[in-house]
Amino acid sequence: MELAVTGGRVLLPDLTVERADVLVDADEGVVRAVGQDLAGDEELDASGGLVMPGLVNAHTHVAMTLLRGYADDKPLDAWLQEDIWPAEGELTPEDVRVGAELGMLEMIKSGTTAFADMYFHVPEIVDAVADAGLRARLGHGVVTIAKEAETAHDDAEESIAVAREFDGAADGRVSTAFMPHSLTTVGSDFLDEYVPQAREAGVPVHIHANETADEVDPIVEEHGMRPLEYAREHGLLEPEDFVAHGVHTTPEEHELLAETGAGVVHCPASNMKLASGMAPVQVMHDAGVSVGLGTDGAASNNDLSLFDEMRDAAMLGKLAADDASAVPAEAAVEMATQGGAEVTGLPGGRIEPGAAADLVVVDLDAPHLTPGHDLVSHLAYAVTGSDVRHTLCDGAVLMRDREVLTMDEDAVLERAERAAADLVQRV
Amino acid sequence: MELAVTGGRVLLPDLTVERADVLVDADEGVVRAVGQDLAGDEELDASGGLVMPGLVNAHTHVAMTLLRGYADDKPLDAWLQEDIWPAEGELTPEDVRVGAELGMLEMIKSGTTAFADMYFHVPEIVDAVADAGLRARLGHGVVTIAKEAETAHDDAEESIAVAREFDGAADGRVSTAFMPHSLTTVGSDFLDEYVPQAREAGVPVHIHANETADEVDPIVEEHGMRPLEYAREHGLLEPEDFVAHGVHTTPEEHELLAETGAGVVHCPASNMKLASGMAPVQVMHDAGVSVGLGTDGAASNNDLSLFDEMRDAAMLGKLAADDASAVPAEAAVEMATQGGAEVTGLPGGRIEPGAAADLVVVDLDAPHLTPGHDLVSHLAYAVTGSDVRHTLCDGAVLMRDREVLTMDEDAVLERAERAAADLVQRV
Repeated sequence: MELAVTGGRVLLPDLTVERADVLVDADEGVVRAVGQDLAGDEELDASGGLVMPGLVNAHTHVAMTLLRGYADDKPLDAWLQEDIWPAEGELTPEDVRVGAELGMLEMIKSGTTAFADMYFHVPEIVDAVADAGLRARLGHGVVTIAKEAETAHDDAEESIAVAREFDGAADGRVSTAFMPHSLTTVGSDFLDEYVPQAREAGVPVHIHANETADEVDPIVEEHGMRPLEYAREHGLLEPEDFVAHGVHTTPEEHELLAETGAGVVHCPASNMKLASGMAPVQVMHDAGVSVGLGTDGAASNNDLSLFDEMRDAAMLGKLAADDASAVPAEAAVEMATQGGAEVTGLPGGRIEPGAAADLVVVDLDAPHLTPGHDLVSHLAYAVTGSDVRHTLCDGAVLMRDREVLTMDEDAVLERAERAAADLVQRV
Repeated sequence: MELAVTGGRVLLPDLTVERADVLVDADEGVVRAVGQDLAGDEELDASGGLVMPGLVNAHTHVAMTLLRGYADDKPLDAWLQEDIWPAEGELTPEDVRVGAELGMLEMIKSGTTAFADMYFHVPEIVDAVADAGLRARLGHGVVTIAKEAETAHDDAEESIAVAREFDGAADGRVSTAFMPHSLTTVGSDFLDEYVPQAREAGVPVHIHANETADEVDPIVEEHGMRPLEYAREHGLLEPEDFVAHGVHTTPEEHELLAETGAGVVHCPASNMKLASGMAPVQVMHDAGVSVGLGTDGAASNNDLSLFDEMRDAAMLGKLAADDASAVPAEAAVEMATQGGAEVTGLPGGRIEPGAAADLVVVDLDAPHLTPGHDLVSHLAYAVTGSDVRHTLCDGAVLMRDREVLTMDEDAVLERAERAAADLVQRV
């Protein structure tokens, strides 16, 4: 079946905009053509709208939606130890499924079609992705410090096993990765033992790194090198790998990233909300580092809209560089689309013949998007998630005219409210 | 006529939330009661929603909506001199009216009921406020440097005349202020001559101050004192006065603000987008300074949603303080409501008997606002302007079920697109 997305304007890979239709092969899940007066077996009305690549949320913990607003405005350590970890300790597989559904509903409604997720109870997340129709790179986060050796090994084995089992699930829409939690919460012996297993399984490694100053200093002190140099020493930073945050990074580390081809996921909202710092995004970009955008979990954001994240990235990037011309709108849009696809290794991020048919239509007919001097500026600075009219992933329409077709919205919200209320009772 | 806003939850002045109805005296424009099972002559359905005070945008240049996305990502000086000032030089009174209407439409739709505006062609803005039904403190911005003495005097006279003429216009919904543009763009001789005239006219003074490091240094060098000390020397900082930005301020200046009672309007989005810096909001708050929130103009934001501004304020405030517990959600909500009303001297900001009936109803039934652990957190971090269902100002319903009643939305958008396209041709 061929679907013609007609009557709108299209954001092309070079970030120019032109009036065009997009022809989608719904069976193969690819874009067949971008051009004038295209016709398909079915039509999707994009008039008054902008057809753009589906957004890629390159670092999140999707089931943390259940903890949205549960504990805000606390220093990172207290927040994790007093609130987040105790609550996460109570999450059942069913809770994770419900939280993942809630997050995916939010993503579909706000124009995100692909995401990279680090959490636990991954089989439930795989199921939810299969039903929601999104594309994802999933993995089980491993923490080994302050654990019995046996428990720590079980955790690492689980991460490798999950990565092997579900790579290619959901008709190929699910990919996986080995996900040691961070350079400071997983011992180097574990990296040395398990990273080679990830290579053997053919999956990338996704890890938090250089998020706060507090996690950089101990590595420098203990190992006499910067965290990303340490990561490289222990087998990380292959071209397919990606690290979340990279806030406290040096030019030498940027060079290492650029040389190896490993990517960084910038999470500006989370970095602000947890007072982690300002990532040198423009500097990384100039050094040739691949950068994507991530919302991080909903507990430190507190939403999963990549449109908010683009605005945050463009704005915070200027402060970080002390230069109002840093991280222009184009850079923010690129990070949220092509950059995210490149960093996570997921298809998407571009609308052109042969590309994955992951795309969204944004309504432009609104006061906050008027006048239309510059639509790329609007995408970065003024569009919000609720301006999204249609969402397609892998050629399938997930949302049409703001109605999500793959999920029962009322039921998801109700289940989530109930699960969250029960969780609070248990903690 | 009495209007009962029923079935929702209500945000009370102490920022607690309770299930209650709100009874509004539509003729007098005040809240009569907050309580259970209230009945009026008419009803407005707030079920599933949160009734909260209308937001106060305490510093903007509303007609700059016509320049939204016109020139982004440029250093402040080049942006002003190459793009903004030349374009503003071409704005006709009719353009300002059209731009003001567009901005007010956006504000009504995103839950703002009152704003403080500095611009020119003020009579047209007064007319637009009268028709839109909002509340505003308006004024004519004065620049005297790099001008012939006579032209500069005309500008200052115009600002005083406008402040005198329109104070109390639009059935009392319009107030005015004398508005010297900034401490560096208006000479001290002009402050000495005209500020006393503002006092005589009984209007406050609204001025930009301490926005960038570049405008602080010359004052310190030339006058041997900090900008706000200089301002005080020249008759500013009476309790009713308010300064926009206050990014680069010292503890001594905060003490001066707290002592005098003059307020500050924090504009975090604009401060990020123009790379101006991070205002020490938590420090000011701790020093007892009154702080409101402003979007600044749409060319440096790029929207007029106070919900975005709350999120920016809470997030940037944490980075500025290097403390994730700084500027908590409650502080952001307070700045956008009570704080803004206090700083601008406009009624509103609180829902309680006798208060101005300026209020909005936010829909809570959405994925990004689920679960409902903490609604004040949601207001600061997750609600967007498009979650607003109803908007009331001065007891009148300006928007019902997302339909703006005081303006023809399609016509406003069309006029704005045309005016913006014409403007670009002329520049």
